[in-house]
Amino acid sequence: MTQIYSLNRIKAALRTIDPVPLIEQGFVDYTKGRVVVPPVGEMIFEDPPGDVHIKYGYIKGDAVYVIKIASGFYQDAKSGLVQSNGLMLVFSQKTGEPESILLDEGLLTNIRTAAAGAVAAKYLAPGKVNRIGILGAGTQGRVQLQYLKHVVDCDDVIVWGIHQKELDAYLQDMASFGFRIETTLDASEVAATCNLIVTATPSTEPLLKAGQIRQGTHITAVGSDTPEKNELHPEILQKADLVVADSVSQCLLRGEIHQAIRAGCLDRETIVELGSVIEDAQNQRTSESQITVADLTGVAVQDIQISKAVCEALRSAARRRV
Amino acid sequence: MTQIYSLNRIKAALRTIDPVPLIEQGFVDYTKGRVVVPPVGEMIFEDPPGDVHIKYGYIKGDAVYVIKIASGFYQDAKSGLVQSNGLMLVFSQKTGEPESILLDEGLLTNIRTAAAGAVAAKYLAPGKVNRIGILGAGTQGRVQLQYLKHVVDCDDVIVWGIHQKELDAYLQDMASFGFRIETTLDASEVAATCNLIVTATPSTEPLLKAGQIRQGTHITAVGSDTPEKNELHPEILQKADLVVADSVSQCLLRGEIHQAIRAGCLDRETIVELGSVIEDAQNQRTSESQITVADLTGVAVQDIQISKAVCEALRSAARRRV
Repeated sequence: MTQIYSLNRIKAALRTIDPVPLIEQGFVDYTKGRVVVPPVGEMIFEDPPGDVHIKYGYIKGDAVYVIKIASGFYQDAKSGLVQSNGLMLVFSQKTGEPESILLDEGLLTNIRTAAAGAVAAKYLAPGKVNRIGILGAGTQGRVQLQYLKHVVDCDDVIVWGIHQKELDAYLQDMASFGFRIETTLDASEVAATCNLIVTATPSTEPLLKAGQIRQGTHITAVGSDTPEKNELHPEILQKADLVVADSVSQCLLRGEIHQAIRAGCLDRETIVELGSVIEDAQNQRTSESQITVADLTGVAVQDIQISKAVCEALRSAARRRV
Repeated sequence: MTQIYSLNRIKAALRTIDPVPLIEQGFVDYTKGRVVVPPVGEMIFEDPPGDVHIKYGYIKGDAVYVIKIASGFYQDAKSGLVQSNGLMLVFSQKTGEPESILLDEGLLTNIRTAAAGAVAAKYLAPGKVNRIGILGAGTQGRVQLQYLKHVVDCDDVIVWGIHQKELDAYLQDMASFGFRIETTLDASEVAATCNLIVTATPSTEPLLKAGQIRQGTHITAVGSDTPEKNELHPEILQKADLVVADSVSQCLLRGEIHQAIRAGCLDRETIVELGSVIEDAQNQRTSESQITVADLTGVAVQDIQISKAVCEALRSAARRRV
């Protein structure tokens, strides 16, 4: 029988899980060819503006396959506020039966995305992070910072947003996480003072330019997951010493790498996949002065890893109750 | 709040719905460009063999979008028996919220596919059908015949299968539907005696050859929904006076039309879309002696139409109970 899990039960299960090593292992498996991930399904809406992504796949020889639906709809075009939603579906690889439906309302997508940001920072950020810069004061801008705590020893943060109001809300929400947070309405201030930057916006115009990026900076770009969205000027990827894709095949079609290749600023042969970075120190940052960029478009293996772990935790909890 | 509907409730709702006109309207809307249907998502499994299709889309300006997952896994490679499963998801086009989850176990896919077969027969079968031939004694071979009852005045039927055992079960299951049914293990007998033929198998080798098809025959091919599956020899489509696709863009990538084009037996310019056949008598059969072929690969608009109608019926039922 299909098990349906509500957001509250999923939140409870998440308290027993550390997603960062799960996501890290997922990227290694993906790069090693152990995971089947077909091209992303996509629907773009105009009124109200929004997009829906269907990410799906399976680990070879596993018991299940996973289909994840995630959406972002603008509540109000002027505010730039995006309302996320979604769910994850876990099916038997033997019969096709839907085993579990996780009505996570987009939470698991937010967490697996933030966990990927933590993995990228773990292997690519400079040894000494002076200041963390977050572009985007929405949900992902919050969760990314929370998960950086797992891997980066730095509590000095500056956050950029488009309205002071959203920045004030950000400060309030993040007060309890132990960071000293400044806010700014000027993105160049982030580039000028931070050596670890995470961009987490739905922007379709570059927020940072190549001339602003200082030596020794690592940037993780998580906002662009469509062919149109674009947070980094293509010349930033040209200037970078190392450009990393969560999935090379996917980043050729969407995200910052796609934009940079289209602009003639990046050679696809030089892109390194995150799984290879994790596996081999030669593919990581080799000096404190290098500029590195990780483009995270979101890969189904992350959805597979987190939904499997949550289902396992939910089953364990059910067993304990019996 | 997301409403979850079980198979039993869906079956009850279906008793109040005639899907044939809904599906017919869906094809017209699709051909007129009122429906956004991205390419089909697909996963192919090897052990056990199976395939999963994700079909999704939305009617422009509608309140919802729909994602349908349908799977077929071989229970036992020798028997050829395929176990179907699946579900349909209805989301708000404004917020992305999952409004309804229809745990139909593949039933709605079976019904919308059979309804499309009825629509094709309604517009393409010869005026006088002498005998109906069904290739494939599985679930779809049953449902197709049941829905032909809506549009074709003929109770003489011959059914082909690969084992006498499945044919005996077919006879037993279909006894109450008012047909006189013969069975055969020789597909050529179907071609020799029927002028309305439905192929509903997962075959990857043609079951019928061009030389076997008599003048005045209409064939609806519903079994092939992948690039590999193939029920009709490509020369049948070459010989046909009219070749109809449920979706031209989709049939270029999968199904009988895809196979015939690949074999050099069919010019894509000559293919007519089912919505155009419905809308314009000039695109229908113009003489009793013509050979016509409809290739039905299954289009998301069918899933949109049936899931919306079922949700509406379920909501009406809930209102009556209050």
